Amino acid sequence: MNALPSSSRPNPTEAVIAALSAELVNRYGERAVTSMAVREQHGHSLTWAKNQPPDVVVYARTTEEVSAIVKLCAAHDVPVVPFGTGTSLEGHINAPFGGVSVDVSLMNRIIAVHDEDLDCVVEPGVTRKALNEFLRDKGLFFPIDPGADASIGGMVATRASGTNAVRYGTMKDAVLSLTAVLADGQIVKTASRARKSSAGYDLTRLFVGSEGTLGIITEITLKLQGIPEAISAGICPFPSVKAACDAVIMTIQSGIPMARIELLDEVQVRAVNLHSKLTLPESPLLLVEFHGTEAGVEEQAERFGEIAAEFGGGPFEWATKPEERSKLWQARHDSYWAARGLRPGAQSVATDVCVPISRLAECVEETKRDIAEIGLIAPIVGHVGDGNFHVQPLVDMDNPAEIAACEAFVDRLVRRALAMEGTCTGEHGVGQKKMKYLEIEHGPAALDLMRVLKRALDPHNIMNPGKIVAL
Amino acid sequence: MNALPSSSRPNPTEAVIAALSAELVNRYGERAVTSMAVREQHGHSLTWAKNQPPDVVVYARTTEEVSAIVKLCAAHDVPVVPFGTGTSLEGHINAPFGGVSVDVSLMNRIIAVHDEDLDCVVEPGVTRKALNEFLRDKGLFFPIDPGADASIGGMVATRASGTNAVRYGTMKDAVLSLTAVLADGQIVKTASRARKSSAGYDLTRLFVGSEGTLGIITEITLKLQGIPEAISAGICPFPSVKAACDAVIMTIQSGIPMARIELLDEVQVRAVNLHSKLTLPESPLLLVEFHGTEAGVEEQAERFGEIAAEFGGGPFEWATKPEERSKLWQARHDSYWAARGLRPGAQSVATDVCVPISRLAECVEETKRDIAEIGLIAPIVGHVGDGNFHVQPLVDMDNPAEIAACEAFVDRLVRRALAMEGTCTGEHGVGQKKMKYLEIEHGPAALDLMRVLKRALDPHNIMNPGKIVAL
Repeated sequence: MNALPSSSRPNPTEAVIAALSAELVNRYGERAVTSMAVREQHGHSLTWAKNQPPDVVVYARTTEEVSAIVKLCAAHDVPVVPFGTGTSLEGHINAPFGGVSVDVSLMNRIIAVHDEDLDCVVEPGVTRKALNEFLRDKGLFFPIDPGADASIGGMVATRASGTNAVRYGTMKDAVLSLTAVLADGQIVKTASRARKSSAGYDLTRLFVGSEGTLGIITEITLKLQGIPEAISAGICPFPSVKAACDAVIMTIQSGIPMARIELLDEVQVRAVNLHSKLTLPESPLLLVEFHGTEAGVEEQAERFGEIAAEFGGGPFEWATKPEERSKLWQARHDSYWAARGLRPGAQSVATDVCVPISRLAECVEETKRDIAEIGLIAPIVGHVGDGNFHVQPLVDMDNPAEIAACEAFVDRLVRRALAMEGTCTGEHGVGQKKMKYLEIEHGPAALDLMRVLKRALDPHNIMNPGKIVAL
Repeated sequence: MNALPSSSRPNPTEAVIAALSAELVNRYGERAVTSMAVREQHGHSLTWAKNQPPDVVVYARTTEEVSAIVKLCAAHDVPVVPFGTGTSLEGHINAPFGGVSVDVSLMNRIIAVHDEDLDCVVEPGVTRKALNEFLRDKGLFFPIDPGADASIGGMVATRASGTNAVRYGTMKDAVLSLTAVLADGQIVKTASRARKSSAGYDLTRLFVGSEGTLGIITEITLKLQGIPEAISAGICPFPSVKAACDAVIMTIQSGIPMARIELLDEVQVRAVNLHSKLTLPESPLLLVEFHGTEAGVEEQAERFGEIAAEFGGGPFEWATKPEERSKLWQARHDSYWAARGLRPGAQSVATDVCVPISRLAECVEETKRDIAEIGLIAPIVGHVGDGNFHVQPLVDMDNPAEIAACEAFVDRLVRRALAMEGTCTGEHGVGQKKMKYLEIEHGPAALDLMRVLKRALDPHNIMNPGKIVAL
């Protein structure tokens, strides 16, 4: 399952690794680790993919250390794989050709917060929750929230987003500037702290979503948001996925500035109810949230309720207390673990696609028919304001027929999204598992251009090789 | 004045141009033009820079034609310079090394509007006003509005923005996908129509802001916005630039979702009053606009008025009727021409910088002191919600001392912005005139990386050579 692209470079020899490890231990002491437990912990994604451990793990502390490590690896022609919290879903942090995993979890300082400019400067190992905890007293927050408590560096590298993207954008929008270590160890800073700029090529966006294949991100300047005066959240069941999607389209067309608008299918609702001890109605469900002033939020909610009713949705129920709201969103963020609870012992093969919102209902409904036909358990959750949804098949890894069926299902899912002018991944990234779809999505000329970029920035293919584009 | 970077490539020989022109006329008939009047019209920016005409102008009609033209130019090693409406401000469309100007003004079809997805597909010669006229009946609008009625292709190429950027972002945010013709004539499409994607390198943002130096943009998919239910605009005078900027910072920190918040200094207000026959108070002035529901807009306006008063601003006056509002914003958009009216016969040397908003008041005030000290007439307008402002010195081009003084002033302005963690251009682009500041702004490693990109995509330096980075 999840066949990986064929090797395009040899693994380092034992002699090279021995020499390199000795040098790394010499320099970084116990921060350079070769124990199999630690290597394996750094060799797999959160959803199922074969473990591919690196040869060495180094816990870096500074940009200069990362630069020195990359220079050393370049000198030995050894792959370098950056590692944040290990919550990747598509095999980004595996080391298919061995090499050095550069773990940035010790680079977890919040370097500066500029209240007046609504930005902050952080190291890549800071997690999104740690950042928000730090910011809370200042009346600011960082809105991008993939389900996991991912590191900011990993979120930049995969162009992550989450439930707030419909209002606040994705990591593409949230990064003002970053520092990256290139394949030859050079350190570049991509932009100033100005809110916008037309000063040359967009080096920032070159690295956002590049998954460690063009450089290692070692510092990030992020846009922040003011915590809104009023927040209200609610749930609204619908008779069908289509009805829910139509309500979402109408809501967005009406210009109601939704902060969050999330779809759970009835399977996912059941999973969430079991996992988080809730009693949500087990039908297609929208979880919504509004940000604004007291009056503004009330007005938005009222208009959303009217729109939902037009499409047969309701009753629309409010989580008025902050703790109720937190519980609801925690349940949503735990949906991955909740889904796994539906079939204990099975492996999870979470994946995501994204389509233009006008095609979303059709795409989700065809996918649900497909799931039903092959008898999979595969809950669906979606950031429906963006046309993005996740499917999480639960598979018995001891059953080859089931594995094959799941593989074929994921393939059909991706091709279905692509046929609807969508993308093979809305927010998880390419990693290893989506590589084969890039040519279908972008066409051969655009894929060639990606290879041109990769070769120009990493001519010896040492930066996280075997991800995004194979050379 | 505005010394251009030294030539890094020879101009094509007369024999080459003769052969190329013959072939272009043969293929495109009267759409291939060599008259000096047309060449000169394609050889200069809107603000003063030496005219550098191309050798031939071709009016292309399709992506395939652009590809064929680029292939022909590549075969003859002749520069290709894309041209939209010619409203560039920094020498982007001049042809310092001769070659072919590819005018896309005939590529002005709106190919599709997808109401439910809030996007549209357009050719590069569509202007922002033509697009908005077309969209009006559909309840949609395209928010990015540089002062001029620029072409969408040019706006993509310069990463343009305008008065709405504080709410709706810049061209970086507005482009979902684009088609570009590369230096070898290959045609790439950068992305699907999905609202977001993590599927590989961000080819879209590679071309946004690349000013024709990496490829020619021939089709663009743009995000649109719903026309808000209610819009209200107003003006508010302040005792000083600092008071106005402080009010802006407080407004943004309070999370009031301003659609527009524009500063005019007293010199610019006087110019606008003269040009547009208005009677605005001749002091630092904020022009603001709110978008939302009736109640929401009223609430926002009320809170803004309170904040303005805290900083000594007021009275805050409303333009309640749509025609009053239009007149106000037209006056703002005409500020370039209004400024020129302050000194008939003088040339305009409009330029822009952008700094973190916390430094904006300081930057504008230092700049105003500088203007006063050297006795320039140089009105200031600013997209202050983004920290971006424009200065427009009016210079007697027959007075070498004045020219030198203005040159030195612009240099100090840019260096002042850079010293405040800002950028040498917020929205005009680099063109030829800001090239020398890229290394100071980004550092040598990042500038090298820009050169690596340029060389990788355009190894023979035929795509708009002599702009952004000199090879």
